[in-house]
Amino acid sequence: MPLNPRDVRFQVFEVLQAQDLLSRPRFEEHSKESFDDVLNMAFEFAKNELEPHYRESDNVEPHLENGRAVVLPAVKHALEGMRDAGFFAATADAEFDGLQLPHVVWNACQAAFMGTNPGTSSYAFLTVGAANLIASFGTDAQRETYLRPMLAGRWFGTMCLSEPHAGSSLTDILTRAEPRDDGKFLLTGSKMWISGGDHEISENIVHMVLAKLPDAPPGVKGISLFAVPKRRVGANGALEDNDVRLAGLNHKLGARGTTNALLSFGEGGDCVAELVGQPHQGLAQMFQMMNEARIAVGLGGAALACAGYNYSLEYAKERRQGRLPTNRDPASPQVRIIEHADVKRMLLAQKALAEGGMMLCLYASKLVDEHATNPDATQARAAELILDLLTPVVKAWTTHYALEANSHAIQVLGGYGYTREYPVEQYYRDNRINPIHEGTNGIQSLDLLGRKVTAANGEGLKLLTATMLEDIGTARGLGLDDLCDALEAAMKVTAKTTQTLLTATPEKMLANSWHYLELFGHVTVAWLWLKQAITATKAEEAATLESERDFYSGKLQAARYFTRFELPKVAVWGNLLSSLDTTTLETQETWF
Amino acid sequence: MPLNPRDVRFQVFEVLQAQDLLSRPRFEEHSKESFDDVLNMAFEFAKNELEPHYRESDNVEPHLENGRAVVLPAVKHALEGMRDAGFFAATADAEFDGLQLPHVVWNACQAAFMGTNPGTSSYAFLTVGAANLIASFGTDAQRETYLRPMLAGRWFGTMCLSEPHAGSSLTDILTRAEPRDDGKFLLTGSKMWISGGDHEISENIVHMVLAKLPDAPPGVKGISLFAVPKRRVGANGALEDNDVRLAGLNHKLGARGTTNALLSFGEGGDCVAELVGQPHQGLAQMFQMMNEARIAVGLGGAALACAGYNYSLEYAKERRQGRLPTNRDPASPQVRIIEHADVKRMLLAQKALAEGGMMLCLYASKLVDEHATNPDATQARAAELILDLLTPVVKAWTTHYALEANSHAIQVLGGYGYTREYPVEQYYRDNRINPIHEGTNGIQSLDLLGRKVTAANGEGLKLLTATMLEDIGTARGLGLDDLCDALEAAMKVTAKTTQTLLTATPEKMLANSWHYLELFGHVTVAWLWLKQAITATKAEEAATLESERDFYSGKLQAARYFTRFELPKVAVWGNLLSSLDTTTLETQETWF
Repeated sequence: MPLNPRDVRFQVFEVLQAQDLLSRPRFEEHSKESFDDVLNMAFEFAKNELEPHYRESDNVEPHLENGRAVVLPAVKHALEGMRDAGFFAATADAEFDGLQLPHVVWNACQAAFMGTNPGTSSYAFLTVGAANLIASFGTDAQRETYLRPMLAGRWFGTMCLSEPHAGSSLTDILTRAEPRDDGKFLLTGSKMWISGGDHEISENIVHMVLAKLPDAPPGVKGISLFAVPKRRVGANGALEDNDVRLAGLNHKLGARGTTNALLSFGEGGDCVAELVGQPHQGLAQMFQMMNEARIAVGLGGAALACAGYNYSLEYAKERRQGRLPTNRDPASPQVRIIEHADVKRMLLAQKALAEGGMMLCLYASKLVDEHATNPDATQARAAELILDLLTPVVKAWTTHYALEANSHAIQVLGGYGYTREYPVEQYYRDNRINPIHEGTNGIQSLDLLGRKVTAANGEGLKLLTATMLEDIGTARGLGLDDLCDALEAAMKVTAKTTQTLLTATPEKMLANSWHYLELFGHVTVAWLWLKQAITATKAEEAATLESERDFYSGKLQAARYFTRFELPKVAVWGNLLSSLDTTTLETQETWF
Repeated sequence: MPLNPRDVRFQVFEVLQAQDLLSRPRFEEHSKESFDDVLNMAFEFAKNELEPHYRESDNVEPHLENGRAVVLPAVKHALEGMRDAGFFAATADAEFDGLQLPHVVWNACQAAFMGTNPGTSSYAFLTVGAANLIASFGTDAQRETYLRPMLAGRWFGTMCLSEPHAGSSLTDILTRAEPRDDGKFLLTGSKMWISGGDHEISENIVHMVLAKLPDAPPGVKGISLFAVPKRRVGANGALEDNDVRLAGLNHKLGARGTTNALLSFGEGGDCVAELVGQPHQGLAQMFQMMNEARIAVGLGGAALACAGYNYSLEYAKERRQGRLPTNRDPASPQVRIIEHADVKRMLLAQKALAEGGMMLCLYASKLVDEHATNPDATQARAAELILDLLTPVVKAWTTHYALEANSHAIQVLGGYGYTREYPVEQYYRDNRINPIHEGTNGIQSLDLLGRKVTAANGEGLKLLTATMLEDIGTARGLGLDDLCDALEAAMKVTAKTTQTLLTATPEKMLANSWHYLELFGHVTVAWLWLKQAITATKAEEAATLESERDFYSGKLQAARYFTRFELPKVAVWGNLLSSLDTTTLETQETWF
């Protein structure tokens, strides 16, 4: 199974104690058992409905037919199953037939889906994200019109931000919305890279589109958010064409199961849009969806990293090749490759990066729940501040190192890993999108260092540091001093580096922002491995089954691996950043 | 152009001074101009004959038809052009109509081919490698039968080592050769992963096959080398079928233009083979081809890294997106992305890794020439020792970091980089094979630390160190002290680390061999960047054209980048290795 259910349960229930959320009124209809049930359902669903067509949806790419995108029938079938199981409304309010699941539990389910078949799963997650925007900012009428069918999985949703000339730079979008007399708008413009942008899987598609009103001030403060259905509800209640044209499909390296479209709105002058929320507040509102999406992208990256890890692990246990360096007898049988130190290294590296990344994403998911439901306002605010700070790290660190893990998985399989007979090359291809979309990893690093670290007077960083120190205290009590010493040293480097950067000019401060994000991510993930080590240490003592003791030993060993092999890089990045190195800034274009 | 001809000339003629080889009798028919001409021809050929079908040969994969592999006609056409240009015999003896080019010049040509279209080029390089084996170890009769048509490009060649159950472990091959009365042999067995293993491009294919004789001692000392033509020369001189069956084609992540076959020899009991060289000496002989191939694989990796660098560089100069952090005016025009510090970082990283890797490969190629032609026996031997030491580094370091460079290229292009409308995703896929084939990178690291470092009493390492120190002396005279200080510090770490490792048990010594190879590679490449910086510093002063001064400034800047951003990692690996960390060794299978 791409995700190890035992590990997911460890993270959700043993480390993050998701069951503590049951005391909150929002989750009172739930129980530890219902959390477990939904996780089980998700794993079963992934195995039975998503895994079988994973390769086929890569082989049979979406294609244009009569101006519409045609998708493999198995994709539609699986999404109907997801709809029937109620997964589209997993975290939604009961008022809209939602299950009101905590995000931490639901994101564990999402991880199972995205680690098994990200191409198919994406349609659902984009729909949920779009639906949440309408839930937050839409009028009652919009909620009735759009939200209900989306949460029911009958209508799907997309987010339409980028344009061909403005992928990352939303300031520069050209899509326009002209007001009509009836309070609605006529939209014109092109949107690029729209995942799920066209298909005939659902009855309708609701595009959440950023566009500018005629009186828009320049820049990002002049962007508004619109709901633009592919088919609008006509006078008689029937769906009619809304002048959204599929202008082309992108052919991608991976993630091929998800259509990726260039859409043209209002070519016929008849694309009707509804303003969602306040005029000119579109970007701020869209950030809600983007922040959710950034966690989801990190989660998708980590999930595929776990998938590669688990697949290559099973392979390494079976495949016989060569002998250990201490054995020179060619007549002795070949060993299973898991016995080779270098293969163990590649497995440990994958475990440390993949499960470490997953822990980061699920920790962030729990913060979403704490922010939304903690009755103590101070704690709710603390969760929000740490979440804001960590969101770029969740997105960028996880997706960057998830790819490294996927490359290891290929390497463990050797030549076989390079063939399309095995899934690891597809994981690698599918996962390569994650450092790019929802804000490139470079942009995340500018967000982290340029905005998030200093936001709210640096309160988020202080709170995160305090949380880490608290865990270090606990860990020392359990004898995990070696892990604690290394983490504390790395935290000091981080503090000093941050201090130095914040006193520099913006240009110098941001010159090497990517390495700051790596440093920040490494310290954070080392801490989350310490957190897992704390839980594992306590649980190992109490465990009676040998398989359980082994599981916890593995957790401890991966924590050690990350601390010994990865964390020391923090010193390198810290030195570079603290020196305010200007190599990148000084390089002239003509020198390349 | 995927490779920058200016950079290749800089490396070959300015840094490595290939023209010095003209004093050697083997190259006396050549001149600086003929070297230049062949390089120009190679670049022209790559552009006109290889680039146009690069994408198509990926789209239209080789497929089985009536038991034979069918390849895109454009591949055949290009290889016929390569044949007609005499490229198959570039380094071969004049006696066999060879051009007797130095390897350093020829490998620069190969880089142009492999950076432009590795799928098509591979057929030629495999043929040359196989031909060289026959040239070295074959009888006169074998040379007449096989070598002439191969060097003429009429017959192609392959290397058949791996078997389905023995990819990396040649000890365990099962292919058998039974002697016949006429001195020839009947071969039976299966070979896996055979690049160029079947096609109808050439009149014939000569497979260089490892197999065991009936009286073979166990292990690698019982392996013999055979020439096994797809079609043997019959009694009347005509070609007849030799019972080599194409059992299947592998469908790969990349490098799809090259067929990759599972071959079955002697299913009908009629596969005739000729022993090449001595019985049971096959592996030692094959190592000649493997060592050549390992340099070629490194070269191919570096060439694709250069291709990605040059493509993303041109893109970054054109594409407008966003504004600099110091400019908050949304009405100002968007800047070209090359102006963003983080994009410069990704370009500098690519330049440092790609051109650094290329330098390493061309330096190794020059060592091949020095070993073969230096009239001073001591210097020839020194070249051989350094070459032996560096071969695993050339193969593994270069291919590992070349992939990192290719990932940066995708990232610079953003969403476009993830589509198949742009070549960078193909570079990334094509390049992913290079850390796997010709001995996985993990195996290279075992070879480096377990054999090469201590071979000939460590003489290779001593000679390499002395060469580095000599360059450091020169560099200090030119004021490059910052680069020298960092390199000297890293060399000390390397010396101490090596010392510590060599006193440990074999198990502990080799437990983290991959990181030793990374450390070794980083120091070597930092030195080769210093070497380039020396040349650039001298040349920059003398340069009159601004574009030339810019070129040299770029070389110096890339040297600084590598020294400041990459070289410090040596300390991390040094600490880990010197601590004789046993994390990998201690991890139990049940803990994963």
